[in-house]
Amino acid sequence: MLKNKCLKAKEAFAVLSSSTGQVRNRAIALMAESLEAEYEYILTENEKDIADAALKRLSDAMTDRLRLTKERIFAISASLRKVCMLPDPLGKGTVFTHLNGLTIQKVQVPLGLIAIIYESRPNVTVDAAALCIKSGNTVILRGGSEAINSNIALARVLRNALSASDLPADCIQIVEDTSRETATELMKLNGYIDLLIPRGGKSLIQAVVANSTIPVIETGEGNCHIYVDESADTEMALNIINNAKTSRPSVCNAAESLLLHRSVAATLLPLIKARMPKVELRGCAETLKILPDITAATDEDFYTEYLDYIMSVKIVADVKEAVTHINEYNTKHSDAIITKNPDAAEYFTVNVDAAAVYVNASTRFTDGEEFGFGAEIGISTQKLHARGPMGLDELTTIKYKVIGNGQIR
Amino acid sequence: MLKNKCLKAKEAFAVLSSSTGQVRNRAIALMAESLEAEYEYILTENEKDIADAALKRLSDAMTDRLRLTKERIFAISASLRKVCMLPDPLGKGTVFTHLNGLTIQKVQVPLGLIAIIYESRPNVTVDAAALCIKSGNTVILRGGSEAINSNIALARVLRNALSASDLPADCIQIVEDTSRETATELMKLNGYIDLLIPRGGKSLIQAVVANSTIPVIETGEGNCHIYVDESADTEMALNIINNAKTSRPSVCNAAESLLLHRSVAATLLPLIKARMPKVELRGCAETLKILPDITAATDEDFYTEYLDYIMSVKIVADVKEAVTHINEYNTKHSDAIITKNPDAAEYFTVNVDAAAVYVNASTRFTDGEEFGFGAEIGISTQKLHARGPMGLDELTTIKYKVIGNGQIR
Repeated sequence: MLKNKCLKAKEAFAVLSSSTGQVRNRAIALMAESLEAEYEYILTENEKDIADAALKRLSDAMTDRLRLTKERIFAISASLRKVCMLPDPLGKGTVFTHLNGLTIQKVQVPLGLIAIIYESRPNVTVDAAALCIKSGNTVILRGGSEAINSNIALARVLRNALSASDLPADCIQIVEDTSRETATELMKLNGYIDLLIPRGGKSLIQAVVANSTIPVIETGEGNCHIYVDESADTEMALNIINNAKTSRPSVCNAAESLLLHRSVAATLLPLIKARMPKVELRGCAETLKILPDITAATDEDFYTEYLDYIMSVKIVADVKEAVTHINEYNTKHSDAIITKNPDAAEYFTVNVDAAAVYVNASTRFTDGEEFGFGAEIGISTQKLHARGPMGLDELTTIKYKVIGNGQIR
Repeated sequence: MLKNKCLKAKEAFAVLSSSTGQVRNRAIALMAESLEAEYEYILTENEKDIADAALKRLSDAMTDRLRLTKERIFAISASLRKVCMLPDPLGKGTVFTHLNGLTIQKVQVPLGLIAIIYESRPNVTVDAAALCIKSGNTVILRGGSEAINSNIALARVLRNALSASDLPADCIQIVEDTSRETATELMKLNGYIDLLIPRGGKSLIQAVVANSTIPVIETGEGNCHIYVDESADTEMALNIINNAKTSRPSVCNAAESLLLHRSVAATLLPLIKARMPKVELRGCAETLKILPDITAATDEDFYTEYLDYIMSVKIVADVKEAVTHINEYNTKHSDAIITKNPDAAEYFTVNVDAAAVYVNASTRFTDGEEFGFGAEIGISTQKLHARGPMGLDELTTIKYKVIGNGQIR
């Protein structure tokens, strides 16, 4: 059954992949209009998911992630209009000429069919569909059971909008069956699906990486570190630590672990504790000597992305020990050093293995909007194809077009 | 045991990744010198593989692929000196500035540890090692049992050369145990290995794609097509078909399948047969009406990369039918149209899904050297990260270095 959806998407791709940027933008604008026109229908369907969430006794935070409101729907449609304004990623390229007169063009083209396996937030359904259409890709969306009524309603509205555009409705496919089997089946559809992007928690992403035979881009897990060097400015350190930990603890670019140079630990630790009273610190043995009231950190703590008001703390001898620790425990997302020493900054940025390395700034800036890419489909924590915030260019591949007049080798 | 090799490579990476281009080039130059100085030792070890090949009754072609000679070793060292001359892929990047004064640099950096699983030709041991070192990557080489004595000898010479350079010998790791288990173990070393490149036949590549949990780049399978359109120049068509099929049938950019527009088939087919007397044509039912003496092609034939003097032939109604056939049967490597009609050329190049699409030229040009990339580590037939000939840039990833002075979000 999923193969059928893929085959329909493939037919639609023949039209989509040769469409102009104008046609794709008009389709996305129609998607935005339809979401606004149909918001009451969407809210009715969303209510079913909210009622199910109550039955399943989901936490308030989880339920809030599921909930749509008129305001949230209009915010989603506003974001689609921003996608229309972004430059067309397709057709860009370089041209070079071969010795014997062949013209070789390297051109950006769509990947084909992109599968997204995601959890919770129904806005992913709309954002992912719009970014795929904008980049000339068809998409197959497989959201979680907790949001299935909302997702089906949103996909219906989007597909109807495409029908009114010059693109086929089949550019967008939704998997209604949210059983584990459909996810597993998707992961094995080599030859039908060109890229699989999991968006969700660690266990979802690990299951996809372990089981998919289709190329995957891992996104989103962020065990981000702040290292305060010997020479750091104390006030700057306190501001950055506080911002990175508490401005939005549930997101992947929030800091989870704090490393302190031995020479600054005794001064800084009480100030940090006072500055972030809501945050539970979990410290190494040496930290506990300075702050005897806090919990001891286990090795597991240093591997943990809390996504909560909790932070692990470790005292280190120098920037080298900090880098060694980070490369062992980080998720290759975002890590920062606070220092006045240019050598320490250079050593840190060269040797920390992460998508984004910061000097004297908060890790919270790792974000497609903040980096100026417009919308993002996720933050890649792997090294192949895309690293860091993934914008429209990361949803394309290249093709060599070679034009000759009879050349042979 | 393989984990130990990975850990040694990781230690070496700390030195390699922060080395200058000059240091890396000097190491590669020493590798070239050492190969020449030690050629007699290498030939002695290679003789053992050749003797084993005779015992195993390997074909002459297979044995020739294994064989090293003084001339071949010096050709390999000459190719290393060419690698030294290529521009450094590391450190290149763009710089942009964030609204509130953050400087964001997007810089090309090494991937880390690259594993290569390969068959036959011992020169892969040297080429792959040199390209990895040049691009700042450590490498773990797992060649086949048929060339193991040669591979161990080559790796020993290369590691000794590194010891005499400013880079650690452990940048290059070789797997001496060529059992199936070591290949399987490599494919699961997530967190240790950053990229796995299989080089070899279809079954090797498929096994790696199916079993690896590490990101893989598929290389080399080429079921390449030539489509002769209605308006094609007959002489040009004959030249290109003959060149693409017979100039080197055993390589991945050789043509395997010929599609002919119905209106030119009756004229062209006898000329093609006369032009390539060594080639066995296998035709569709309509082809057999024109050339009754040839074998009938099965559906399996159209999926087959023969790598031999065999070519499947099918008659089609137009460029659309040709493109549909190609997208079903090709391996997304290289496909060509021969035509005078710009609309047919445009339709073909936009809609054929392949790394390289040709108009009026031979598919044999898909090659790193021909495209001007210098050396290549393989030809990617997948769409993620790298597509087509893979040069040094494709062995790198990017990192964002963000420099601030206290910015918070």
